[in-house]
Amino acid sequence: MPRTLPKHATAEDMKYVQDTLYVISGKWKMMIILAICAGNNRFKEIQRAIPDITPRMLSKELKELEQNKLVVRKVYDESPVLIEYGTTPYCKSFGAIIHEMIRWGKEHRNIIKR
Amino acid sequence: MPRTLPKHATAEDMKYVQDTLYVISGKWKMMIILAICAGNNRFKEIQRAIPDITPRMLSKELKELEQNKLVVRKVYDESPVLIEYGTTPYCKSFGAIIHEMIRWGKEHRNIIKR
Repeated sequence: MPRTLPKHATAEDMKYVQDTLYVISGKWKMMIILAICAGNNRFKEIQRAIPDITPRMLSKELKELEQNKLVVRKVYDESPVLIEYGTTPYCKSFGAIIHEMIRWGKEHRNIIKR
Repeated sequence: MPRTLPKHATAEDMKYVQDTLYVISGKWKMMIILAICAGNNRFKEIQRAIPDITPRMLSKELKELEQNKLVVRKVYDESPVLIEYGTTPYCKSFGAIIHEMIRWGKEHRNIIKR
């Protein structure tokens, strides 16, 4: 994984970056994906895992993540009905980006502290 | 570079991701960094490299990138005065994220096309 900036980014590359930004932007999407990955599969669990998110926001964001095929909502026919959220294999392709974002954010805090 | 999602992201990790998102979000910042990296160092060159950006927006974004120590503005004492923009060594630490965003955005288009 190169640590230097791409020197010859084409107009196409720029579009790809904009597409990715569009999908990951916003305060909550990445948080929700991380919370689900950490084993919080039920609505209440996800909500507890993310400080400050309101049920209304969580519900809205989960729907968007579902539409973008990043999160899947599974309904189990039990009584009472059990609803669980999971990440899709496609969502897992974000892995490298999220790991890099954690690494960079950590470094960034250290730089700001100086 | 792991391609799977982090399974045990801590609350701290979530904060790091939010910090990173905060810095890279918005429609233009990454575009400007890529344009400068591609050798567009003067204001007019950067503007030409980014379709649809207005001079007013570019000026505002360049100032913010400067404040965040990602871009440096160099003034050469010539006649007429020459002003060039460059990326900082700190900005280069974005390398891995940008490469991943290009890769992911490309893959994403292919998935959407299907």
